[in-house]
Amino acid sequence: MTKGAVYFHFANKEALAVAVAEEFYALLPAIAETVRTEPIAPLDAVAELLIRTATAFRDNRMIQAGARLQIERHLVEAAMPTPFTEYTHLIADLLAQAQSDGQLPASSDPQAMARVVVAAFFGGQHISWVLHDRKDLAERVREIIDVILP
Amino acid sequence: MTKGAVYFHFANKEALAVAVAEEFYALLPAIAETVRTEPIAPLDAVAELLIRTATAFRDNRMIQAGARLQIERHLVEAAMPTPFTEYTHLIADLLAQAQSDGQLPASSDPQAMARVVVAAFFGGQHISWVLHDRKDLAERVREIIDVILP
Repeated sequence: MTKGAVYFHFANKEALAVAVAEEFYALLPAIAETVRTEPIAPLDAVAELLIRTATAFRDNRMIQAGARLQIERHLVEAAMPTPFTEYTHLIADLLAQAQSDGQLPASSDPQAMARVVVAAFFGGQHISWVLHDRKDLAERVREIIDVILP
Repeated sequence: MTKGAVYFHFANKEALAVAVAEEFYALLPAIAETVRTEPIAPLDAVAELLIRTATAFRDNRMIQAGARLQIERHLVEAAMPTPFTEYTHLIADLLAQAQSDGQLPASSDPQAMARVVVAAFFGGQHISWVLHDRKDLAERVREIIDVILP
């Protein structure tokens, strides 16, 4: 596709950036949906969701573009979608369900745990990107699951 | 200070970016040094280090500029310092010491744990920056400590 063809569809660079970011934040719930339909326990669903998201970050160009726009959002002169909030809610819901099922101790806080998981995922994928062009991302995310989830 | 005065000292924008990033990565070990001189157990030292780093990210303009350059490093046309590696080693050393002292189970992996702690810190400070201009950063980092460290 030529640059001209792209600008035929988007009024300007900012509109394009917002469209890519919106696509990025639409892909995350779509990945979550593929996990939700599987007959697995909620804690395994969190792990599976993180692994599938990591694979998407590693292989999907739209996700990579969205992650980069997220990171460089201060340079985009347009309101960008709020980051991570939906994804964090999704994980918090699964962790709350795990707690009801007795998979998590009553003392743990599913909301806090979800925020920490998402922070570790986001930081981990950024560090993996900078240091190893995301080649070790699946391994790093497996590590996050092992260290944070019981 | 005027823009002219800044460029009198730095050959170009790239040299300035590298200098700020180097200062940023020099400040982190300096914070670690203030923790190391205190008579506290290694696991408490990790928590204290994270809290002091969070405070610096919230209050220190040089740290904020360094964190932003780290995030936008793909836009800087110069070799930037390798991110987080020293800081991760520091935390891994403290966690290994905690393990020798019996504060961490023999089954835990101090290297993996340190990578996850640093990923969560980095992701957490970025999300806190975007969502709340880092106002809730101390709280978010306290959460990381509670969820990840035993």
